[in-house]
Amino acid sequence: MLTTCSENKVSNGWHKQFTHQSSALNCPMRFAVFLPPQASENNPVPALYWLSGLTCSDENFMQKAGAFRTAAELGIALVAPDTSPRGEQVADDESYDLGQGAGFYLNASQPPWASHYHMYDYVTVELPGLLERHLPLSSVKAISGHSMGGHGALTIGLKNPTSYRSISAFSPICNPSNCPWGQKAFQAYLGDDKKLWQSYDACELIKSAQQVLPILIDQGDADDFLQQQLHPEALIAAANATNYDITLRMQPGYDHSYFFIATFIDEHLRFHAKYLKR
Amino acid sequence: MLTTCSENKVSNGWHKQFTHQSSALNCPMRFAVFLPPQASENNPVPALYWLSGLTCSDENFMQKAGAFRTAAELGIALVAPDTSPRGEQVADDESYDLGQGAGFYLNASQPPWASHYHMYDYVTVELPGLLERHLPLSSVKAISGHSMGGHGALTIGLKNPTSYRSISAFSPICNPSNCPWGQKAFQAYLGDDKKLWQSYDACELIKSAQQVLPILIDQGDADDFLQQQLHPEALIAAANATNYDITLRMQPGYDHSYFFIATFIDEHLRFHAKYLKR
Repeated sequence: MLTTCSENKVSNGWHKQFTHQSSALNCPMRFAVFLPPQASENNPVPALYWLSGLTCSDENFMQKAGAFRTAAELGIALVAPDTSPRGEQVADDESYDLGQGAGFYLNASQPPWASHYHMYDYVTVELPGLLERHLPLSSVKAISGHSMGGHGALTIGLKNPTSYRSISAFSPICNPSNCPWGQKAFQAYLGDDKKLWQSYDACELIKSAQQVLPILIDQGDADDFLQQQLHPEALIAAANATNYDITLRMQPGYDHSYFFIATFIDEHLRFHAKYLKR
Repeated sequence: MLTTCSENKVSNGWHKQFTHQSSALNCPMRFAVFLPPQASENNPVPALYWLSGLTCSDENFMQKAGAFRTAAELGIALVAPDTSPRGEQVADDESYDLGQGAGFYLNASQPPWASHYHMYDYVTVELPGLLERHLPLSSVKAISGHSMGGHGALTIGLKNPTSYRSISAFSPICNPSNCPWGQKAFQAYLGDDKKLWQSYDACELIKSAQQVLPILIDQGDADDFLQQQLHPEALIAAANATNYDITLRMQPGYDHSYFFIATFIDEHLRFHAKYLKR
């Protein structure tokens, strides 16, 4: 059951926000979809799932990325889930990088997080099922994201290579087991089991990948988080060791903001379109 | 004196926010500029001034309109002032449509507003002077805006036809003397003198225009404010009566939001470029 909570015409398509009761997350959730003008009951369209970064909701990408014009041209739907379970009943932490707004796209195993924090199941199973039943979306999917959401896109794509045609990321957390953001989140959500950590770390997952997907990563070289948190070089090293081909573009002068995303989102959409529409 | 308070590379140019002490407004102000990659000391570029609507700051347009890519392609700077004077010393009202965030781009004559509310002087004289002195902007200008800012763009352009090459607006308040938003603001800022009201009403100004500028207006027909507040039909009637040519495009299904602006901003930029660059 989806309840429409807003709809705005944009680029000859529709931006819509929906609420629903999530079984994976055990709480009410809101998400946003852009439906391009080509989408109809008789013409379900492929979708790009966008996973946002720390502190974001479904709104940041939809309001700031400027993605509608090209998505409308290409006939691709955009899906933006929230970044964590939400609500008064849901465990939280006062810091911005743990708890609500910081779900890290995994299934938590530890109390107090395990009862709601199953963003991995939500994004990979519940949300696509819901959308493909209730909206004119086909099951053809690609996945992208920013920062924590770039980590989400990489890990979810690598773990489910038959569910997604292509992966892209802006400024992703590439090696969460080895950076402060990731270590804090994994310790809290997953506990001490480093084997479990590896199952949500793109640098580990790429080593055991059974199937190769096209991957495009853009990273600004003026990004304040690059040195301490993001480690694209670790992902490239792991990919090289196993002959997994990744395109990493270092973009001179760009930072971690949505201004960076807005600059290159059209190229990401065209990259995904090549695989979504063949 | 301009103080840089943020800068982000975007679309190969720069989005920058500055603060300064405004003499027209008698308080510190912040504004934002997008400098396209073509702008340099030896190559000052033309600028499109964007006037935002009620409750907005310099940030709404810059974050939500998706204007950078085309502005960069065309070599046009974008300038977004705030919508009123700001600060604890500045008179305010608890409603969203009067006081801070609701300057209406006029010079107030009435207490307590007259000591700070001179957005007309700020936008037409102080800000362009400052920008042309300190940034690589030429004196070639166009003006656009949304809602209250559409009223600002129309009235400022009509009153200063030698300062601006072209005017455009999204969902403008076309006849403020005859709608609730305008009447409330004009009564407070300008008092009972209806002659003074007429000097800030596009429907009156167009009757006495000495020089014709190109004007493009986009208006969504699903805009909740259309019937009560905007009255584009009054402006078209006034323009027709004096043979002033205005292009008004009614856009089916679009509302009053930035989703509407993002859809058509590229066409407005290309419209202005025709006149800015000849």
